[in-house]
Amino acid sequence: MDILLTNDDGIHSIGICALYESLKTEGHRVTVVAPSGERSAVGHALTISDPIKVKKIFREGREFGWAVNGTPADCIKLAVNVLLDRRPDLVISGINRGANVGINVLYSGTVSAATEAAILGIKAIAISIDSFSDLNYCYAAFVAKDIAKWFCKTDIKCRAINVNIPSLPAHKISGIKVTRQSTNSFNEKFEKRVDPRGNIYFWQCASFPKEIEKDTDIYWLKKGFITITPIKFDLTDYSCITKFFPPKIN
Amino acid sequence: MDILLTNDDGIHSIGICALYESLKTEGHRVTVVAPSGERSAVGHALTISDPIKVKKIFREGREFGWAVNGTPADCIKLAVNVLLDRRPDLVISGINRGANVGINVLYSGTVSAATEAAILGIKAIAISIDSFSDLNYCYAAFVAKDIAKWFCKTDIKCRAINVNIPSLPAHKISGIKVTRQSTNSFNEKFEKRVDPRGNIYFWQCASFPKEIEKDTDIYWLKKGFITITPIKFDLTDYSCITKFFPPKIN
Repeated sequence: MDILLTNDDGIHSIGICALYESLKTEGHRVTVVAPSGERSAVGHALTISDPIKVKKIFREGREFGWAVNGTPADCIKLAVNVLLDRRPDLVISGINRGANVGINVLYSGTVSAATEAAILGIKAIAISIDSFSDLNYCYAAFVAKDIAKWFCKTDIKCRAINVNIPSLPAHKISGIKVTRQSTNSFNEKFEKRVDPRGNIYFWQCASFPKEIEKDTDIYWLKKGFITITPIKFDLTDYSCITKFFPPKIN
Repeated sequence: MDILLTNDDGIHSIGICALYESLKTEGHRVTVVAPSGERSAVGHALTISDPIKVKKIFREGREFGWAVNGTPADCIKLAVNVLLDRRPDLVISGINRGANVGINVLYSGTVSAATEAAILGIKAIAISIDSFSDLNYCYAAFVAKDIAKWFCKTDIKCRAINVNIPSLPAHKISGIKVTRQSTNSFNEKFEKRVDPRGNIYFWQCASFPKEIEKDTDIYWLKKGFITITPIKFDLTDYSCITKFFPPKIN
């Protein structure tokens, strides 16, 4: 297969390299088009007010891909419209450092890259590990290649899936669950500080919701399962659309 | 009502001022927490790797609100968790310069601010005008106050709506339509240029899809209707979820 890789941790991160090696070993044609540096939590942002610069990257004497000073969604658009000589069969975004589950899915550059590929009509997988330290990238890369093979063979309408992997040794993984996105809001926290010139500033931090909804991505991930959530890019709330009577403008 | 305003064009833009004046005239308590400068197409990005600075803004001797060096979604989180002394009854994001319809909804900072409010359990309206020049902000602000009143009275489950207004004089508006988001991908274009040092760079531009899906936000907006689309923040594709058989990891 022709596989395009991207991420939001940047082209030099370990996650994307592990993914690259794992897929190359399987004989796939792999191209990397990824942000030049970290772009965590940029969501589905696009770079429209600044020019986008592109730089070819080599690893161990071989062409590895392109570093883009833009967002993960920019990378996908630029790769498909400009940089690649043919349309990829599959896009994989990751392997992300830290889970992308629940409301985080909306903030995630990793997932947005997969969504962007889906918008362009290409099958796509976002893949993340539920940890910020002790990350088992080798196992995640191993899982990714199997999921890639399966997803491309599956005759399913859905174009994008969001995969999260517990940071556990392989024998402690409980299984795989296809599950929905949790919608509980996270615990928001803003840490207030004062700079040396007396100005106030804030650091934004958040943690998983206190109340974990049953049978959701967060729920199963915390129980040691690999989670797969099919993702869509139509934000219409159809459950409401028929019940609306538009207002009168006076 | 207690109304919180934000946008992605920045706190000093005409759209948010028009909205402020229109709502104040109606007797509402209005607070503005908006980005310090333009943040178009930032989608649902959050500022987590940099500190967020906040500055109080005055207009005509009166306290107008806070300028935040962050994204529209940051503004909502910071306002609700830190800056406001009480929870708002309603959030309005806009009035945006340029329509936010179809796939653009995913890239839009304006819509993401409304979605963020909805995540936090607050009713929210994103409002945009379909033009980049000759914008009739007065009419849009007039419409916004009526839609705000109606939306807060409506006993509907949906927490966020995305409103788009044609840039037409009031008597030429065809009516109001509750409609779904179009999902056709836009016409992508990257303009290639060379800088004075010989480096290649790209400008990203896009235009409405060639093929306009019937009975969608783009379709009705182009026919002169004000469009209202209820928006959700659960990206799960439920149409696929039951059909999935998870893969086996070898």
